[in-house]
Amino acid sequence: MNESNGGDTPRQRTVLVVSAHPEARSLNAALTHFAVEHLRAAGHRVRVSDLYAMKWKATVDADDFPDHGADRRLSVMADSEQATLRGRLAPDIAAEQEKVREADAVILQFPMWWFSPPALLKGWIDRVFTSGFGYGPRVPPPYSEGALAGRRALVSVTTGARSTAFSDRGIHGRLSDVLHPLQHGLFWFTGMAPLEPFAVYGANELSAQRFAAARREYGRRLDGLFTDEPVPFRSLVGGDYDHDMRLLPGVERPGAGGLDLHSR
Amino acid sequence: MNESNGGDTPRQRTVLVVSAHPEARSLNAALTHFAVEHLRAAGHRVRVSDLYAMKWKATVDADDFPDHGADRRLSVMADSEQATLRGRLAPDIAAEQEKVREADAVILQFPMWWFSPPALLKGWIDRVFTSGFGYGPRVPPPYSEGALAGRRALVSVTTGARSTAFSDRGIHGRLSDVLHPLQHGLFWFTGMAPLEPFAVYGANELSAQRFAAARREYGRRLDGLFTDEPVPFRSLVGGDYDHDMRLLPGVERPGAGGLDLHSR
Repeated sequence: MNESNGGDTPRQRTVLVVSAHPEARSLNAALTHFAVEHLRAAGHRVRVSDLYAMKWKATVDADDFPDHGADRRLSVMADSEQATLRGRLAPDIAAEQEKVREADAVILQFPMWWFSPPALLKGWIDRVFTSGFGYGPRVPPPYSEGALAGRRALVSVTTGARSTAFSDRGIHGRLSDVLHPLQHGLFWFTGMAPLEPFAVYGANELSAQRFAAARREYGRRLDGLFTDEPVPFRSLVGGDYDHDMRLLPGVERPGAGGLDLHSR
Repeated sequence: MNESNGGDTPRQRTVLVVSAHPEARSLNAALTHFAVEHLRAAGHRVRVSDLYAMKWKATVDADDFPDHGADRRLSVMADSEQATLRGRLAPDIAAEQEKVREADAVILQFPMWWFSPPALLKGWIDRVFTSGFGYGPRVPPPYSEGALAGRRALVSVTTGARSTAFSDRGIHGRLSDVLHPLQHGLFWFTGMAPLEPFAVYGANELSAQRFAAARREYGRRLDGLFTDEPVPFRSLVGGDYDHDMRLLPGVERPGAGGLDLHSR
């Protein structure tokens, strides 16, 4: 990450776009392409991890930690931490960690499959955010101060569902609640500042007109990547939680319930 | 699934345990083993899908649909539906669908990684619950009447976190909210009746005594697999939602907010 240049013109930032769709002619691929072009046109440096094209390995196993003895019991957290701190992770993981480390913002582009990211993207998360890199006793504490603080994070998701089904009273659950494991559990936990998700609904039959509108809206969201207000999640260390990580009585906004408890 | 035998003795049921941990000596493997033995001792038929041992393929791609022309654009929903209805899915997917179809209950056993299942288990979900099998226009509508109605479903999860961090006011979010994509999004959406999740906390340093206590508690939950009250999620077709799939005004319990809106 670069320091601010103190000038009036936006400085160049580095953005990592992680994309997960098996079809190179898909809407997700088109949105990834659009984001790359749009961000480059704005002067940013953009890197892409196209997980299907990379044939990314989806599953955590002992091969991720080359020093792990085949006959020894694998403890994922302990072994991933040792390998991380010793610089002995599998090279594909180390390369992705380097991309995250040098990014000022991370964008995850994916189709909503069963109300969460495709397995291949989940496998990028599982394998890249090792103990010692994304969390763990050797890095700053989670939730606001975490290991990756200073970075912004944006989910860009497509879904066949209509928007009302993901609205505040929609049967699928509010989109931000459904994405809580990413927004709060991955981004905020590791210290990244998540923005409100960007979603394209009705994605199974998207007319040219609606695709153009989606691009315009996504362009506005990309323009605000470093200036829009992040989701105001609460800090673990800001005095809102007790020592058992529970929100203190009476801290919540009047009427707030559910996962909204954890927003200021 | 069998019909009730109308007698006083519990009838034999079929239970599918899907387990996802890379280490055969892990707590998750031990809990899977315990469940299998406990359910068999109770007279049930048990099948296990040990995803790491099976070398399960985690990612949806064109190889899942052998009739898909290599040069044709892959539409995951449409292609998976065609392959499902024609009986032309990859054999490993078809075999797992058969296991789910004949099961009276499905148990998912996994470690919580980044507030969701490991990628390998997500890939089992992504690949097995195709359009035409788990959802889609050719099967009963989702949420209570879904394609897999009549089955029960249980998450059994381990986490290094303390229980308070997943409690009602815990910073990670209430466990049932964090698991909403599985409980409501997978199980209830496809018509399965989910039970409250079973969780082992502090799983990174579990004493023999706490492991014994966890087994006892899990045994009680397994004993109630077909008799405990499922989570009382609302039916899409029961008159609680409008045509845009939003909860009607005033239907909720007083004070209910967040994802609790969708429970009776």
